Amino acid sequence: MTQPKREPFTGELTHDPRVLLGPGPSNLHPRVTRAMTAPILGYLDPDFLAIMDDVMVLLRHLFQTDNEMCITLPGTGMAGMEAAVCNVVEPGDEVVVGIHGFFGQRLAEIVERHGGTAIRVEVDFGQVVGTNRIEAALDAHPAAKMVAVVHGETSSGVGQPLEEIGRLVRERDKLFLVDTVCSLGGAHVPVDETLIDICYGAGQKCVGGPAGIACITLNDRSMTVIGARSRPVDTWYLDLTLIRKYWLSERAYHHTTPGPLVYALHAALRMIQEEGLEPRIARHQKCGDLLKAGLTGLGLELFGDPVNRLPMLTCVMIPDGVDDATVRSRLLQDYGIEIAGGFGPLKGKAWRIGLMGFSCSERNVHYLINALREILAD
Amino acid sequence: MTQPKREPFTGELTHDPRVLLGPGPSNLHPRVTRAMTAPILGYLDPDFLAIMDDVMVLLRHLFQTDNEMCITLPGTGMAGMEAAVCNVVEPGDEVVVGIHGFFGQRLAEIVERHGGTAIRVEVDFGQVVGTNRIEAALDAHPAAKMVAVVHGETSSGVGQPLEEIGRLVRERDKLFLVDTVCSLGGAHVPVDETLIDICYGAGQKCVGGPAGIACITLNDRSMTVIGARSRPVDTWYLDLTLIRKYWLSERAYHHTTPGPLVYALHAALRMIQEEGLEPRIARHQKCGDLLKAGLTGLGLELFGDPVNRLPMLTCVMIPDGVDDATVRSRLLQDYGIEIAGGFGPLKGKAWRIGLMGFSCSERNVHYLINALREILAD
Repeated sequence: MTQPKREPFTGELTHDPRVLLGPGPSNLHPRVTRAMTAPILGYLDPDFLAIMDDVMVLLRHLFQTDNEMCITLPGTGMAGMEAAVCNVVEPGDEVVVGIHGFFGQRLAEIVERHGGTAIRVEVDFGQVVGTNRIEAALDAHPAAKMVAVVHGETSSGVGQPLEEIGRLVRERDKLFLVDTVCSLGGAHVPVDETLIDICYGAGQKCVGGPAGIACITLNDRSMTVIGARSRPVDTWYLDLTLIRKYWLSERAYHHTTPGPLVYALHAALRMIQEEGLEPRIARHQKCGDLLKAGLTGLGLELFGDPVNRLPMLTCVMIPDGVDDATVRSRLLQDYGIEIAGGFGPLKGKAWRIGLMGFSCSERNVHYLINALREILAD
Repeated sequence: MTQPKREPFTGELTHDPRVLLGPGPSNLHPRVTRAMTAPILGYLDPDFLAIMDDVMVLLRHLFQTDNEMCITLPGTGMAGMEAAVCNVVEPGDEVVVGIHGFFGQRLAEIVERHGGTAIRVEVDFGQVVGTNRIEAALDAHPAAKMVAVVHGETSSGVGQPLEEIGRLVRERDKLFLVDTVCSLGGAHVPVDETLIDICYGAGQKCVGGPAGIACITLNDRSMTVIGARSRPVDTWYLDLTLIRKYWLSERAYHHTTPGPLVYALHAALRMIQEEGLEPRIARHQKCGDLLKAGLTGLGLELFGDPVNRLPMLTCVMIPDGVDDATVRSRLLQDYGIEIAGGFGPLKGKAWRIGLMGFSCSERNVHYLINALREILAD
């Protein structure tokens, strides 16, 4: 047998806990962590199928939908994005993509990877896409199959209004795809009421669960479009027709579900139900407001359209003369706090501060503001 | 807000532990379970990057390779299969696929999903593919880009010999892709020595880790072929060029790694190193032999090519007059033991019994044989 290049240098994992105030992962509540340690079950074990049933009910509550198809995918939020796009898009299909930040760009890129044409409706980073712009794109591209937007742009801290676009898209008889990776569980996005056809989120942000598991819901309109494809989806792993057979109809093997992540998500979803969606959303709003007031109190300037700033992700400009990396590494090393740097045009110019799920608490806001005050004073 | 369809019916997870003797997931050692509870880190936290470095070293040991690219993917073993195929295959590419069971069929299907042409070299379930058959296919399709085979066929319990095919494929200057989802960590598959270019496995089988995380290694030959693609991979989520940037070169964000799964895999890989690969493989062989002897002792007939039966997955015929479902549900309910039913042509006709990772122990063999003796006597 060959020898490994070198011996591993660590033994047990010894790292200290962090206060995770970046764009996710967020901290796990101990109940969620504990749930991961439940005994492993086979993927067709009757007890595991019952847990899956339970997860579907809890997801319907979270997404505020009656959709039957309300499941998890064995991958991160980006697997949710890829699945949402690739199951609908066939080569040559046009998709109108509203872009107000990095993740909208990625949506468009994924449309193109699967052979579709992305009709980009782009606004500046930090702004939101006007319904009139989407309408004009649909007028110019009447054959478009779908309109896709990101709700909470993790890259800019801005939330895209959805209601008007939802009505427009339904009138035009297109599909409406909304990415709620950043906002699901922390903002009010009622899927049915907003006329969203396909919606996905991730475990590790406001949902309060682990990374590596995506949540997705599709209504019958979108499942019908997917069922009418002229060729199979170009990705076997994320083929929702096959995955549906595992979760719903035949309980036929598709993949070996990551049990511990399903357990953890189950615990996180139960905590959402116990807290109540409305109080939970109010908590995210209150902490987000407190953070913004604190940052402004330090003399910092917030980024993005003031009317549509997200509660759970705040983008704040780095003051002149302050070094991004120095501040973030002092926060991490001296205070155990993680925040994130800026993305794209904001790289080196802004910080992104998340208050998501269990990380979203007034005590964390106070701790961060105090830490920033001390570091910026130096 | 809309109301959920119905209230969830469970509270905390209360299921009993199982003795998992199916084709995976296998039982987790308590050290592996405990590792999942380590504090969550951001995906670019220096401590997390160090853990990733460590995982890469441990994976090189497991795969017996010096490949730099030795990483995990945020998905199940099937994500490994999809990534291994879709990064290489461009529309029109021919791939010779050796098929000796269900997962070889799936390899061919995935080649076709990505626009390639699968040249199927197929033998009966339970047999292995002769090198001469692969050679004839390469003679008939000299432009083929790759030869792909499954090492351990979870569907038939048979292991494909690899050495001769490896030499042939290298002589012809093609890529050699081997699926070791079933066998990695439980059988001797030295990647470099066997001239394998692309190899992947899963966490939850003989590796002794959790499901939902795939392990993959690629050598420079295959990364060069991937780098020379004429168009981007049709799947963003599993684009290895992007994922490589996260694991190796730039440490650039690609996805939010499922931290707890990485921690658990890290613990499982450390246990492999502590046990030693050779003793671990010997343990799988010994327990597999013990199981086969026990089953034969009960008067049962083993399935598949006797020379190439796998140690970690045994396929055994169900005796006439014995009902598959009755026996398996009694095993699960009365003994807490999970075994699996047959696949494809063996559905209802065979059982598949796994001895993988921490589940692979003499005590589990004795317990199962005893339980089967009691049930079959009724």
